[in-house]
Amino acid sequence: MIYVIKIGGNIIDNPDKLNGFLSHFAAIKGHKVLAHGGGKVASQLAEKLLMPQKMVQGRRVTDAETLDVITMVCAGLINKNIVADLSALGCMSLGVCGADADLILADKRPVKEVDYGFVGDIKHVNGNVLFGWLSQGISPVISPVSHDGQGQLLNTNADTIASVVATALSAYDSVSLIYCFEKMGVLLHVDDDTSVIPTLNEEQIEKLKNEGLIHSGMLPKLENAIKTVKQGVESVVIGHADALPDIILGKSGTKIS
Amino acid sequence: MIYVIKIGGNIIDNPDKLNGFLSHFAAIKGHKVLAHGGGKVASQLAEKLLMPQKMVQGRRVTDAETLDVITMVCAGLINKNIVADLSALGCMSLGVCGADADLILADKRPVKEVDYGFVGDIKHVNGNVLFGWLSQGISPVISPVSHDGQGQLLNTNADTIASVVATALSAYDSVSLIYCFEKMGVLLHVDDDTSVIPTLNEEQIEKLKNEGLIHSGMLPKLENAIKTVKQGVESVVIGHADALPDIILGKSGTKIS
Repeated sequence: MIYVIKIGGNIIDNPDKLNGFLSHFAAIKGHKVLAHGGGKVASQLAEKLLMPQKMVQGRRVTDAETLDVITMVCAGLINKNIVADLSALGCMSLGVCGADADLILADKRPVKEVDYGFVGDIKHVNGNVLFGWLSQGISPVISPVSHDGQGQLLNTNADTIASVVATALSAYDSVSLIYCFEKMGVLLHVDDDTSVIPTLNEEQIEKLKNEGLIHSGMLPKLENAIKTVKQGVESVVIGHADALPDIILGKSGTKIS
Repeated sequence: MIYVIKIGGNIIDNPDKLNGFLSHFAAIKGHKVLAHGGGKVASQLAEKLLMPQKMVQGRRVTDAETLDVITMVCAGLINKNIVADLSALGCMSLGVCGADADLILADKRPVKEVDYGFVGDIKHVNGNVLFGWLSQGISPVISPVSHDGQGQLLNTNADTIASVVATALSAYDSVSLIYCFEKMGVLLHVDDDTSVIPTLNEEQIEKLKNEGLIHSGMLPKLENAIKTVKQGVESVVIGHADALPDIILGKSGTKIS
């Protein structure tokens, strides 16, 4: 089994949470990949540099300067500190972005109504190189930056990277994709943290969606999870970073399969 | 033959020079490693962030904030852009710092008269992992950051990284270490760019040193080169980045062997 685990800004921003998570990650036996975001820390640096961040329909526009900030913060600061921390925990890891070893090739998003700037839509993942590293006992730590193969780095959604990496690795072994976020799983009642739905399939998701029971922020995650499972990933689990050991044991989170 | 090539700020700062250099680097047949600095770009970012840089005896003191800036700029921005550029040139590369795959282990420099802060003195290089990547056709691109194995990143001199990496790789194949700088080689007369000394050995360096003919900035480079050759590296060449193809052919630069 290969575990592909994604963490976002709410964990990365908090050193105690991050350390706790990394201890759990390092303790996983066998093959594991970590995909991380970091947009919040990047926004903080952009603010310090007096760079106004342009948002269109709630999404960041990545101009050339913003891309540099994301590359510095995500592919540099966050990525290398995670790698150093994992090493201290006895887990040899390799911090990469999508340009490294031509890992993740993307197209710059076409300009339609909105020009999102240097944002990548992924078209190919080099699963062979990734699986090679895993076979050598090295855990890849992947930052949310890809490239177009023509020398241009591209800001790329970390959830999507986790999904396509999981899919690419499913050609080599069973893959479990785990999205860590700030809730214990998909909640039946959005204000009741104990109402975690343990398992969901496509039919059930469709039903909940039609009944208006799925939180609007959760819907794209679930639709993406269904898509990922259809492409060969054994299961997608959405759960809390603190509960990673229980998620691995199948005792926590919402499992989509 | 394995080529280990070091470039510094004067090339990295200049996009045209860097592109020219990377074309030459990508065209080298066989195994090659690139080590780069980036302190100048880091200083520019520190200035924008209104972080005063502390210098003691001409050397930068690396406090925690400065280390973050170096990690962002060198291990992130510069490193990943080089990797993307090399990919566009058909050269698959892997951008790493010393924490990646436990590549370069260092001790934080002991505090004596001066506290240099988070600066690393290298104690071990993982040549096995490096040679493994070379054997897979991947060229490592190494940024000037190492780690202490306890979770702490450390700012580390790029010249020294190039030297210890070349030494570690000499256990696997013949290694040629090339330092690129802004002159065509070691000059017999500091103001005469045509007075390049083609070859130097330890005895000749000692003689020039005693005659006061070696520029003070060049002396540590030459002493380091002699040390590296003594540790098994076949030759160390000091030359101009623009002349890389001629350096490889043995037609340019100063060769210390």
